[in-house]
Amino acid sequence: MTQSELIRQIKAKRSFLCVGLDTDLEKIPKFLLDTEDPLFEFNKQIIDATRQYCVAYKPNTAFFEAYGEKGWRSLQRTVEYIGKEHFIIADAKRGDIGNTSERYAKAFFEQMPCDAITIAPYMGSDSVKPFLNFEGKWAIILALTSNPGAEDFEMQNIGGKMLFEKVLETSKNWGSAENTMYVVGATRPELFQAVRKIVPNHFLLVPGVGAQGGSLADVCKYGLNSNIGLLINASRSIIYASAGQDFAEKATEEAKKMAEEMQQYV
Amino acid sequence: MTQSELIRQIKAKRSFLCVGLDTDLEKIPKFLLDTEDPLFEFNKQIIDATRQYCVAYKPNTAFFEAYGEKGWRSLQRTVEYIGKEHFIIADAKRGDIGNTSERYAKAFFEQMPCDAITIAPYMGSDSVKPFLNFEGKWAIILALTSNPGAEDFEMQNIGGKMLFEKVLETSKNWGSAENTMYVVGATRPELFQAVRKIVPNHFLLVPGVGAQGGSLADVCKYGLNSNIGLLINASRSIIYASAGQDFAEKATEEAKKMAEEMQQYV
Repeated sequence: MTQSELIRQIKAKRSFLCVGLDTDLEKIPKFLLDTEDPLFEFNKQIIDATRQYCVAYKPNTAFFEAYGEKGWRSLQRTVEYIGKEHFIIADAKRGDIGNTSERYAKAFFEQMPCDAITIAPYMGSDSVKPFLNFEGKWAIILALTSNPGAEDFEMQNIGGKMLFEKVLETSKNWGSAENTMYVVGATRPELFQAVRKIVPNHFLLVPGVGAQGGSLADVCKYGLNSNIGLLINASRSIIYASAGQDFAEKATEEAKKMAEEMQQYV
Repeated sequence: MTQSELIRQIKAKRSFLCVGLDTDLEKIPKFLLDTEDPLFEFNKQIIDATRQYCVAYKPNTAFFEAYGEKGWRSLQRTVEYIGKEHFIIADAKRGDIGNTSERYAKAFFEQMPCDAITIAPYMGSDSVKPFLNFEGKWAIILALTSNPGAEDFEMQNIGGKMLFEKVLETSKNWGSAENTMYVVGATRPELFQAVRKIVPNHFLLVPGVGAQGGSLADVCKYGLNSNIGLLINASRSIIYASAGQDFAEKATEEAKKMAEEMQQYV
Protein backbone atom coordinates (compact mmCIF):
# COMPACT_ATOMS: atom_id res chain seq x y z
CA MET A 1 0.00 0.00 0.00
CA THR A 2 1.35 3.44 -0.92
CA GLN A 3 1.52 6.38 1.45
CA SER A 4 -1.24 8.24 -0.37
CA GLU A 5 -3.53 5.20 -0.24
CA LEU A 6 -2.88 4.84 3.50
CA ILE A 7 -3.73 8.52 4.06
CA ARG A 8 -6.86 8.09 1.97
CA GLN A 9 -7.95 5.16 4.15
CA ILE A 10 -7.30 7.17 7.31
CA LYS A 11 -9.34 10.10 6.08
CA ALA A 12 -12.19 7.92 4.86
CA LYS A 13 -12.48 6.12 8.20
CA ARG A 14 -11.39 9.05 10.36
CA SER A 15 -9.28 6.53 12.21
CA PHE A 16 -5.58 5.79 12.43
CA LEU A 17 -6.04 2.71 14.58
CA CYS A 18 -3.93 -0.40 14.13
CA VAL A 19 -5.17 -3.59 15.78
CA GLY A 20 -2.35 -5.79 17.05
CA LEU A 21 -2.94 -9.52 16.68
CA ASP A 22 -0.95 -10.96 19.59
CA THR A 23 -3.03 -14.09 19.43
CA ASP A 24 -2.40 -16.25 22.46
CA LEU A 25 -4.07 -19.64 22.85
CA GLU A 26 -3.97 -19.14 26.61
CA LYS A 27 -6.01 -15.95 26.37
CA ILE A 28 -8.54 -16.52 23.61
CA PRO A 29 -12.04 -17.75 24.53
CA LYS A 30 -11.91 -21.42 25.51
CA PHE A 31 -14.70 -22.48 23.14
CA LEU A 32 -12.51 -21.56 20.15
CA LEU A 33 -9.92 -24.15 21.13
CA ASP A 34 -12.12 -26.89 19.68
CA THR A 35 -12.03 -25.41 16.19
CA GLU A 36 -9.66 -26.76 13.55
CA ASP A 37 -7.40 -23.67 13.56
CA PRO A 38 -8.07 -21.65 16.73
CA LEU A 39 -5.42 -18.99 16.01
CA PHE A 40 -6.99 -18.21 12.66
CA GLU A 41 -10.58 -18.57 13.90
CA PHE A 42 -9.98 -16.01 16.63
CA ASN A 43 -8.22 -13.61 14.26
CA LYS A 44 -10.96 -13.94 11.66
CA GLN A 45 -13.65 -12.97 14.13
CA ILE A 46 -11.55 -10.11 15.53
CA ILE A 47 -10.88 -8.84 12.02
CA ASP A 48 -14.56 -8.95 11.09
CA ALA A 49 -15.42 -7.23 14.35
CA THR A 50 -12.97 -4.37 13.96
CA ARG A 51 -12.27 -3.77 10.28
CA GLN A 52 -14.51 -0.75 9.90
CA TYR A 53 -12.79 1.06 12.78
CA CYS A 54 -9.13 0.48 11.93
CA VAL A 55 -6.82 1.05 8.99
CA ALA A 56 -4.13 -1.47 9.89
CA TYR A 57 -3.54 -4.87 11.45
CA LYS A 58 -0.32 -5.97 13.06
CA PRO A 59 0.07 -9.71 13.54
CA ASN A 60 2.89 -10.45 15.99
CA THR A 61 4.82 -13.26 14.35
CA ALA A 62 6.16 -14.71 17.60
CA PHE A 63 2.71 -15.83 18.67
CA PHE A 64 2.40 -17.89 15.50
CA GLU A 65 5.97 -19.20 15.34
CA ALA A 66 5.50 -20.58 18.84
CA TYR A 67 3.27 -23.22 17.22
CA GLY A 68 5.74 -24.15 14.50
CA GLU A 69 4.65 -25.00 10.98
CA LYS A 70 0.99 -25.00 11.97
CA GLY A 71 1.26 -21.57 13.53
CA TRP A 72 2.95 -20.26 10.41
CA ARG A 73 0.00 -21.50 8.40
CA SER A 74 -2.42 -19.69 10.72
CA LEU A 75 -0.38 -16.52 10.18
CA GLN A 76 -0.53 -16.92 6.40
CA ARG A 77 -4.29 -17.49 6.50
CA THR A 78 -4.76 -14.46 8.77
CA VAL A 79 -2.80 -12.13 6.52
CA GLU A 80 -4.66 -13.35 3.46
CA TYR A 81 -7.99 -12.92 5.23
CA ILE A 82 -7.31 -9.29 6.13
CA GLY A 83 -7.29 -8.32 2.47
CA LYS A 84 -6.05 -5.30 0.56
CA GLU A 85 -7.99 -2.49 2.20
CA HIS A 86 -5.98 -2.61 5.40
CA PHE A 87 -2.30 -1.91 5.89
CA ILE A 88 -0.74 -5.16 7.14
CA ILE A 89 2.29 -5.04 9.38
CA ALA A 90 4.30 -8.19 10.10
CA ASP A 91 5.52 -7.39 13.59
CA ALA A 92 8.58 -9.56 13.19
CA LYS A 93 11.49 -7.42 14.43
CA ARG A 94 13.79 -8.86 11.78
CA GLY A 95 17.15 -7.59 10.47
CA ASP A 96 20.35 -9.33 9.35
CA ILE A 97 23.14 -8.97 6.79
CA GLY A 98 22.02 -8.06 3.27
CA ASN A 99 21.30 -11.38 1.59
CA THR A 100 19.50 -12.62 4.72
CA SER A 101 17.33 -9.51 5.12
CA GLU A 102 16.35 -9.95 1.51
CA ARG A 103 15.02 -13.41 2.41
CA TYR A 104 13.01 -12.02 5.29
CA ALA A 105 11.57 -9.43 2.91
CA LYS A 106 10.55 -12.19 0.52
CA ALA A 107 8.94 -14.14 3.37
CA PHE A 108 6.63 -11.29 4.32
CA PHE A 109 6.27 -9.30 1.09
CA GLU A 110 6.05 -12.12 -1.45
CA GLN A 111 5.05 -15.34 0.32
CA MET A 112 2.63 -13.30 2.41
CA PRO A 113 0.88 -10.15 1.25
CA CYS A 114 2.12 -7.92 4.09
CA ASP A 115 2.71 -4.21 3.50
CA ALA A 116 5.35 -3.69 6.14
CA ILE A 117 7.78 -5.41 8.50
CA THR A 118 9.16 -4.12 11.77
CA ILE A 119 12.97 -4.05 11.74
CA ALA A 120 15.61 -3.89 14.49
CA PRO A 121 18.27 -1.40 13.31
CA TYR A 122 21.20 -2.62 15.42
CA MET A 123 23.18 -4.05 12.47
CA GLY A 124 22.97 -0.84 10.42
CA SER A 125 22.29 0.17 6.84
CA ASP A 126 22.87 -3.05 4.92
CA SER A 127 20.53 -4.90 7.29
CA VAL A 128 17.66 -2.48 6.59
CA LYS A 129 18.05 -1.40 2.97
CA PRO A 130 17.04 -4.75 1.41
CA PHE A 131 13.53 -4.17 2.80
CA LEU A 132 13.27 -0.90 0.86
CA ASN A 133 13.55 -2.45 -2.60
CA PHE A 134 9.94 -3.64 -2.83
CA GLU A 135 7.43 -1.36 -4.55
CA GLY A 136 4.67 -0.25 -2.19
CA LYS A 137 6.23 -2.06 0.78
CA TRP A 138 7.58 -0.56 3.99
CA ALA A 139 10.29 -0.98 6.60
CA ILE A 140 9.17 0.06 10.07
CA ILE A 141 12.38 0.66 11.99
CA LEU A 142 12.51 0.41 15.78
CA ALA A 143 13.45 3.81 17.18
CA LEU A 144 12.14 4.24 20.72
CA THR A 145 10.22 1.23 21.99
CA SER A 146 7.63 1.23 24.75
CA ASN A 147 9.30 -1.28 27.08
CA PRO A 148 11.46 -0.59 30.18
CA GLY A 149 14.53 -1.99 28.40
CA ALA A 150 14.48 1.01 26.03
CA GLU A 151 16.59 2.73 28.68
CA ASP A 152 19.45 0.23 28.33
CA PHE A 153 20.57 1.32 24.86
CA GLU A 154 17.94 3.30 22.93
CA MET A 155 17.99 6.16 25.43
CA GLN A 156 21.74 6.16 26.08
CA ASN A 157 23.70 9.24 25.16
CA ILE A 158 25.67 8.89 21.96
CA GLY A 159 27.53 12.04 20.91
CA GLY A 160 25.11 14.45 22.62
CA LYS A 161 21.94 12.72 21.51
CA MET A 162 20.15 9.54 22.39
CA LEU A 163 20.76 6.38 20.39
CA PHE A 164 17.19 6.38 19.04
CA GLU A 165 17.78 9.92 17.69
CA LYS A 166 20.97 8.73 16.05
CA VAL A 167 18.99 5.86 14.49
CA LEU A 168 16.39 8.30 13.13
CA GLU A 169 19.02 10.69 11.74
CA THR A 170 21.13 7.99 10.15
CA SER A 171 18.32 5.92 8.69
CA LYS A 172 15.89 8.57 7.47
CA ASN A 173 17.78 8.91 4.19
CA TRP A 174 18.16 5.19 3.50
CA GLY A 175 14.70 5.35 2.05
CA SER A 176 12.05 8.06 2.30
CA ALA A 177 8.78 8.87 4.06
CA GLU A 178 7.17 6.79 1.31
CA ASN A 179 8.73 3.49 2.38
CA THR A 180 10.00 3.96 5.94
CA MET A 181 8.14 4.34 9.22
CA TYR A 182 9.42 4.31 12.81
CA VAL A 183 8.27 2.60 15.98
CA VAL A 184 7.94 5.19 18.76
CA GLY A 185 6.29 4.04 21.96
CA ALA A 186 3.46 5.95 23.61
CA THR A 187 4.88 5.38 27.07
CA ARG A 188 7.29 8.33 26.73
CA PRO A 189 5.13 10.95 24.93
CA GLU A 190 7.48 13.80 25.94
CA LEU A 191 10.02 12.42 23.47
CA PHE A 192 7.73 12.75 20.44
CA GLN A 193 8.91 16.34 19.99
CA ALA A 194 12.49 15.15 19.61
CA VAL A 195 11.32 12.53 17.12
CA ARG A 196 9.30 14.99 15.04
CA LYS A 197 12.28 17.39 14.87
CA ILE A 198 14.22 14.68 13.01
CA VAL A 199 11.45 13.00 11.00
CA PRO A 200 8.62 15.51 10.54
CA ASN A 201 7.10 13.69 7.58
CA HIS A 202 7.42 9.99 8.40
CA PHE A 203 4.61 7.85 9.71
CA LEU A 204 5.16 6.59 13.25
CA LEU A 205 3.81 3.27 14.49
CA VAL A 206 2.92 3.82 18.12
CA PRO A 207 2.53 0.91 20.52
CA GLY A 208 1.89 1.36 24.21
CA VAL A 209 -1.52 3.07 24.19
CA GLY A 210 -3.99 1.06 26.22
CA ALA A 211 -2.67 -1.89 28.22
CA GLN A 212 0.80 -0.36 28.52
CA GLY A 213 -0.52 2.95 29.85
CA GLY A 214 0.24 5.49 27.09
CA SER A 215 -2.30 8.24 26.30
CA LEU A 216 -3.69 8.95 22.85
CA ALA A 217 -4.08 12.67 23.57
CA ASP A 218 -0.44 13.00 24.62
CA VAL A 219 0.80 11.15 21.55
CA CYS A 220 -1.35 13.23 19.19
CA LYS A 221 -0.29 16.50 20.81
CA TYR A 222 3.29 16.10 19.64
CA GLY A 223 3.13 13.29 17.11
CA LEU A 224 0.54 14.38 14.52
CA ASN A 225 1.69 15.90 11.26
CA SER A 226 -0.19 17.30 8.27
CA ASN A 227 -0.75 13.78 6.90
CA ILE A 228 -1.76 12.49 10.35
CA GLY A 229 1.52 10.53 10.34
CA LEU A 230 0.52 8.16 13.12
CA LEU A 231 -0.66 4.59 13.35
CA ILE A 232 -1.73 3.96 16.92
CA ASN A 233 -1.57 0.30 17.84
CA ALA A 234 -3.72 -1.39 20.44
CA SER A 235 -3.53 -5.13 20.95
CA ARG A 236 -4.62 -6.60 24.24
CA SER A 237 -7.13 -3.87 25.15
CA ILE A 238 -9.13 -4.73 22.02
CA ILE A 239 -8.59 -8.39 21.26
CA TYR A 240 -8.90 -9.53 24.88
CA ALA A 241 -11.65 -7.10 25.89
CA SER A 242 -13.63 -10.21 26.80
CA ALA A 243 -12.73 -13.89 27.07
CA GLY A 244 -16.36 -14.95 26.76
CA GLN A 245 -18.80 -15.64 23.92
CA ASP A 246 -19.05 -11.88 23.45
CA PHE A 247 -15.33 -11.34 22.70
CA ALA A 248 -15.99 -10.10 19.17
CA GLU A 249 -18.67 -7.60 20.23
CA LYS A 250 -16.45 -6.32 23.03
CA ALA A 251 -13.59 -5.96 20.54
CA THR A 252 -15.90 -3.92 18.31
CA GLU A 253 -16.81 -1.69 21.23
CA GLU A 254 -13.18 -1.06 22.17
CA ALA A 255 -12.06 -0.42 18.60
CA LYS A 256 -15.02 1.89 18.03
CA LYS A 257 -14.23 3.80 21.21
CA MET A 258 -10.65 4.36 20.11
CA ALA A 259 -11.65 5.31 16.58
CA GLU A 260 -14.17 7.82 17.93
CA GLU A 261 -11.49 9.35 20.12
CA MET A 262 -9.38 9.72 16.97
CA GLN A 263 -12.06 11.48 14.89
CA GLN A 264 -11.24 14.89 16.33
CA TYR A 265 -7.72 14.67 14.92
CA VAL A 266 -8.61 13.69 11.33
CA MET B 1 23.41 -28.40 25.70
CA THR B 2 25.37 -27.22 28.74
CA GLN B 3 28.66 -25.33 28.56
CA SER B 4 30.64 -28.29 29.87
CA GLU B 5 29.08 -30.62 27.30
CA LEU B 6 29.93 -28.16 24.53
CA ILE B 7 33.54 -27.95 25.73
CA ARG B 8 33.68 -31.74 25.91
CA GLN B 9 32.51 -31.97 22.27
CA ILE B 10 35.12 -29.42 21.18
CA LYS B 11 37.93 -31.31 22.92
CA ALA B 12 36.80 -34.67 21.60
CA LYS B 13 36.69 -33.43 18.00
CA ARG B 14 39.49 -30.89 18.33
CA SER B 15 37.24 -28.57 16.40
CA PHE B 16 35.18 -25.50 17.24
CA LEU B 17 33.64 -25.25 13.81
CA CYS B 18 30.01 -24.26 13.30
CA VAL B 19 28.49 -24.94 9.89
CA GLY B 20 26.00 -22.29 8.82
CA LEU B 21 22.99 -23.59 6.91
CA ASP B 22 22.07 -20.62 4.69
CA THR B 23 20.26 -22.96 2.36
CA ASP B 24 19.35 -21.19 -0.84
CA LEU B 25 17.35 -22.92 -3.58
CA GLU B 26 19.16 -20.76 -6.13
CA LYS B 27 22.54 -22.06 -5.03
CA ILE B 28 22.06 -25.72 -4.20
CA PRO B 29 22.80 -28.33 -6.88
CA LYS B 30 20.05 -28.32 -9.49
CA PHE B 31 19.42 -32.08 -9.33
CA LEU B 32 18.17 -31.69 -5.75
CA LEU B 33 15.32 -29.44 -6.86
CA ASP B 34 13.40 -32.50 -8.04
CA THR B 35 13.28 -34.05 -4.57
CA GLU B 36 10.19 -33.70 -2.39
CA ASP B 37 11.84 -31.28 0.08
CA PRO B 38 14.99 -29.81 -1.50
CA LEU B 39 15.86 -27.56 1.45
CA PHE B 40 15.88 -30.53 3.81
CA GLU B 41 17.51 -32.91 1.34
CA PHE B 42 20.44 -30.54 0.84
CA ASN B 43 20.81 -29.93 4.58
CA LYS B 44 20.66 -33.64 5.33
CA GLN B 45 23.50 -34.41 2.95
CA ILE B 46 25.56 -31.44 4.19
CA ILE B 47 25.03 -32.54 7.80
CA ASP B 48 26.07 -36.12 7.04
CA ALA B 49 29.10 -34.81 5.16
CA THR B 50 30.32 -32.51 7.92
CA ARG B 51 29.15 -33.79 11.28
CA GLN B 52 32.43 -35.36 12.31
CA TYR B 53 34.31 -32.10 11.74
CA CYS B 54 32.03 -29.60 13.46
CA VAL B 55 30.46 -29.14 16.87
CA ALA B 56 27.60 -26.86 15.88
CA TYR B 57 25.11 -26.09 13.11
CA LYS B 58 23.52 -22.73 12.54
CA PRO B 59 20.42 -22.78 10.33
CA ASN B 60 19.60 -19.26 9.16
CA THR B 61 15.85 -18.99 9.65
CA ALA B 62 15.34 -16.37 6.90
CA PHE B 63 16.21 -18.87 4.20
CA PHE B 64 13.41 -21.16 5.40
CA GLU B 65 10.81 -18.49 6.17
CA ALA B 66 11.20 -17.25 2.60
CA TYR B 67 9.28 -20.41 1.58
CA GLY B 68 6.48 -19.94 4.09
CA GLU B 69 4.88 -22.85 5.89
CA LYS B 70 6.74 -25.39 3.77
CA GLY B 71 10.08 -23.76 4.51
CA TRP B 72 9.29 -23.77 8.19
CA ARG B 73 8.69 -27.50 7.95
CA SER B 74 12.07 -27.98 6.24
CA LEU B 75 13.67 -26.06 9.09
CA GLN B 76 11.97 -28.24 11.69
CA ARG B 77 13.07 -31.41 9.90
CA THR B 78 16.62 -30.09 9.61
CA VAL B 79 16.92 -29.27 13.29
CA GLU B 80 15.50 -32.65 14.26
CA TYR B 81 17.87 -34.42 11.89
CA ILE B 82 20.96 -32.76 13.38
CA GLY B 83 20.39 -34.53 16.69
CA LYS B 84 21.68 -34.05 20.20
CA GLU B 85 25.43 -34.32 19.71
CA HIS B 86 25.71 -30.96 17.99
CA PHE B 87 24.98 -27.53 19.37
CA ILE B 88 22.11 -26.10 17.30
CA ILE B 89 21.84 -22.36 16.80
CA ALA B 90 18.68 -20.83 15.34
CA ASP B 91 20.16 -17.83 13.59
CA ALA B 92 16.97 -15.86 13.88
CA LYS B 93 18.04 -12.43 15.20
CA ARG B 94 14.89 -12.16 17.31
CA GLY B 95 14.10 -9.86 20.25
CA ASP B 96 10.93 -8.09 21.37
CA ILE B 97 9.12 -7.05 24.56
CA GLY B 98 9.02 -9.68 27.29
CA ASN B 99 5.90 -11.72 26.53
CA THR B 100 6.78 -11.79 22.83
CA SER B 101 10.39 -12.84 23.34
CA GLU B 102 9.05 -15.66 25.49
CA ARG B 103 7.06 -16.86 22.47
CA TYR B 104 10.13 -16.77 20.25
CA ALA B 105 11.96 -18.79 22.89
CA LYS B 106 9.17 -21.37 22.85
CA ALA B 107 9.29 -21.52 19.06
CA PHE B 108 12.96 -22.47 18.97
CA PHE B 109 13.53 -24.15 22.34
CA GLU B 110 10.32 -26.13 22.69
CA GLN B 111 8.71 -26.57 19.26
CA MET B 112 12.18 -27.15 17.83
CA PRO B 113 15.08 -28.70 19.73
CA CYS B 114 17.51 -25.79 19.23
CA ASP B 115 20.13 -25.02 21.85
CA ALA B 116 20.50 -21.32 21.13
CA ILE B 117 18.95 -18.34 19.35
CA THR B 118 20.72 -15.24 18.07
CA ILE B 119 19.21 -12.07 19.58
CA ALA B 120 19.32 -8.40 18.57
CA PRO B 121 19.86 -6.41 21.79
CA TYR B 122 18.45 -3.04 20.65
CA MET B 123 15.34 -3.20 22.87
CA GLY B 124 17.31 -3.93 26.05
CA SER B 125 17.08 -6.21 29.05
CA ASP B 126 13.44 -7.28 29.02
CA SER B 127 13.76 -8.28 25.35
CA VAL B 128 16.67 -10.64 26.09
CA LYS B 129 16.03 -12.06 29.56
CA PRO B 130 13.07 -14.28 28.58
CA PHE B 131 15.49 -16.36 26.51
CA LEU B 132 17.60 -17.07 29.62
CA ASN B 133 14.89 -18.93 31.52
CA PHE B 134 15.28 -22.24 29.70
CA GLU B 135 17.55 -24.89 31.24
CA GLY B 136 20.49 -25.76 29.00
CA LYS B 137 19.45 -23.16 26.40
CA TRP B 138 21.37 -20.09 25.27
CA ALA B 139 20.91 -16.52 24.09
CA ILE B 140 23.55 -15.44 21.59
CA ILE B 141 23.46 -11.65 21.66
CA LEU B 142 24.64 -9.58 18.71
CA ALA B 143 27.62 -7.49 19.80
CA LEU B 144 29.85 -6.63 16.84
CA THR B 145 28.60 -8.05 13.56
CA SER B 146 30.70 -8.74 10.48
CA ASN B 147 28.83 -6.52 8.00
CA PRO B 148 29.68 -2.97 6.85
CA GLY B 149 26.59 -1.59 8.61
CA ALA B 150 28.21 -2.40 11.98
CA GLU B 151 29.79 1.05 11.69
CA ASP B 152 26.43 2.84 11.71
CA PHE B 153 25.55 2.11 15.34
CA GLU B 154 27.53 -0.79 16.86
CA MET B 155 30.85 1.05 16.49
CA GLN B 156 29.56 4.51 17.41
CA ASN B 157 31.00 6.16 20.49
CA ILE B 158 28.69 6.04 23.48
CA GLY B 159 30.17 7.55 26.66
CA GLY B 160 33.79 6.85 25.71
CA LYS B 161 33.23 3.34 24.44
CA MET B 162 31.64 1.79 21.41
CA LEU B 163 27.99 0.71 21.49
CA PHE B 164 28.94 -2.97 21.17
CA GLU B 165 31.13 -2.62 24.28
CA LYS B 166 28.23 -1.02 26.11
CA VAL B 167 26.05 -3.97 25.01
CA LEU B 168 28.62 -6.44 26.36
CA GLU B 169 29.02 -4.60 29.68
CA THR B 170 25.30 -4.15 30.24
CA SER B 171 24.17 -7.59 29.19
CA LYS B 172 26.90 -9.82 30.60
CA ASN B 173 25.18 -9.94 33.98
CA TRP B 174 21.66 -10.61 32.68
CA GLY B 175 22.67 -14.23 32.54
CA SER B 176 26.08 -15.86 32.80
CA ALA B 177 28.76 -17.49 30.66
CA GLU B 178 26.64 -20.65 31.02
CA ASN B 179 23.66 -19.33 29.06
CA THR B 180 24.88 -16.29 27.10
CA MET B 181 27.20 -16.02 24.11
CA TYR B 182 28.01 -13.08 21.85
CA VAL B 183 28.26 -12.63 18.11
CA VAL B 184 31.60 -11.02 17.24
CA GLY B 185 32.53 -10.87 13.57
CA ALA B 186 35.91 -12.04 12.26
CA THR B 187 36.16 -9.10 9.88
CA ARG B 188 37.49 -6.79 12.61
CA PRO B 189 39.87 -9.10 14.55
CA GLU B 190 41.67 -6.15 16.17
CA LEU B 191 38.55 -5.57 18.29
CA PHE B 192 38.61 -9.03 19.89
CA GLN B 193 40.95 -7.70 22.58
CA ALA B 194 38.34 -5.11 23.59
CA VAL B 195 35.70 -7.84 23.66
CA ARG B 196 37.79 -10.20 25.78
CA LYS B 197 38.49 -7.44 28.32
CA ILE B 198 34.77 -7.26 29.02
CA VAL B 199 33.71 -10.90 28.60
CA PRO B 200 36.79 -13.08 29.19
CA ASN B 201 34.78 -16.23 29.90
CA HIS B 202 31.89 -16.13 27.45
CA PHE B 203 31.74 -18.13 24.26
CA LEU B 204 31.82 -16.01 21.11
CA LEU B 205 30.06 -17.02 17.91
CA VAL B 206 32.27 -15.75 15.10
CA PRO B 207 30.89 -15.28 11.59
CA GLY B 208 32.93 -13.78 8.78
CA VAL B 209 35.74 -16.35 8.42
CA GLY B 210 35.86 -17.64 4.85
CA ALA B 211 33.63 -15.98 2.27
CA GLN B 212 33.58 -12.67 4.16
CA GLY B 213 37.39 -12.54 4.42
CA GLY B 214 38.14 -12.92 8.15
CA SER B 215 41.14 -15.00 9.25
CA LEU B 216 41.01 -17.90 11.71
CA ALA B 217 44.53 -17.21 12.99
CA ASP B 218 43.73 -13.57 13.75
CA VAL B 219 40.53 -14.46 15.58
CA CYS B 220 42.24 -17.17 17.64
CA LYS B 221 45.14 -14.90 18.56
CA TYR B 222 42.90 -12.60 20.59
CA GLY B 223 39.68 -14.54 20.96
CA LEU B 224 40.64 -17.88 22.51
CA ASN B 225 40.21 -18.41 26.23
CA SER B 226 41.01 -21.32 28.53
CA ASN B 227 37.79 -23.10 27.49
CA ILE B 228 38.43 -22.33 23.83
CA GLY B 229 35.46 -19.94 24.03
CA LEU B 230 34.95 -19.68 20.28
CA LEU B 231 32.54 -21.12 17.77
CA ILE B 232 33.80 -20.22 14.30
CA ASN B 233 31.05 -20.21 11.73
CA ALA B 234 31.50 -20.90 8.06
CA SER B 235 28.50 -21.09 5.76
CA ARG B 236 28.95 -20.49 2.05
CA SER B 237 32.60 -21.63 1.87
CA ILE B 238 31.51 -25.10 3.05
CA ILE B 239 27.95 -25.66 1.88
CA TYR B 240 28.51 -24.19 -1.59
CA ALA B 241 32.03 -25.54 -2.11
CA SER B 242 30.59 -27.21 -5.21
CA ALA B 243 27.27 -26.93 -7.01
CA GLY B 244 27.74 -30.30 -8.71
CA GLN B 245 27.08 -33.94 -7.85
CA ASP B 246 30.14 -33.78 -5.59
CA PHE B 247 28.78 -30.99 -3.33
CA ALA B 248 28.74 -33.21 -0.24
CA GLU B 249 32.33 -34.47 -0.75
CA LYS B 250 33.54 -30.92 -1.34
CA ALA B 251 31.75 -29.80 1.82
CA THR B 252 33.53 -32.58 3.72
CA GLU B 253 36.88 -31.42 2.34
CA GLU B 254 36.27 -27.80 3.33
CA ALA B 255 35.01 -28.66 6.81
CA LYS B 256 37.92 -31.04 7.34
CA LYS B 257 40.40 -28.38 6.25
CA MET B 258 38.98 -25.88 8.72
CA ALA B 259 38.84 -28.44 11.53
CA GLU B 260 42.47 -29.39 10.88
CA GLU B 261 43.47 -25.75 11.07
CA MET B 262 41.74 -25.60 14.45
CA GLN B 263 43.51 -28.64 15.93
CA GLN B 264 46.56 -26.65 16.95
CA TYR B 265 44.42 -24.49 19.25
CA VAL B 266 42.61 -27.28 21.11
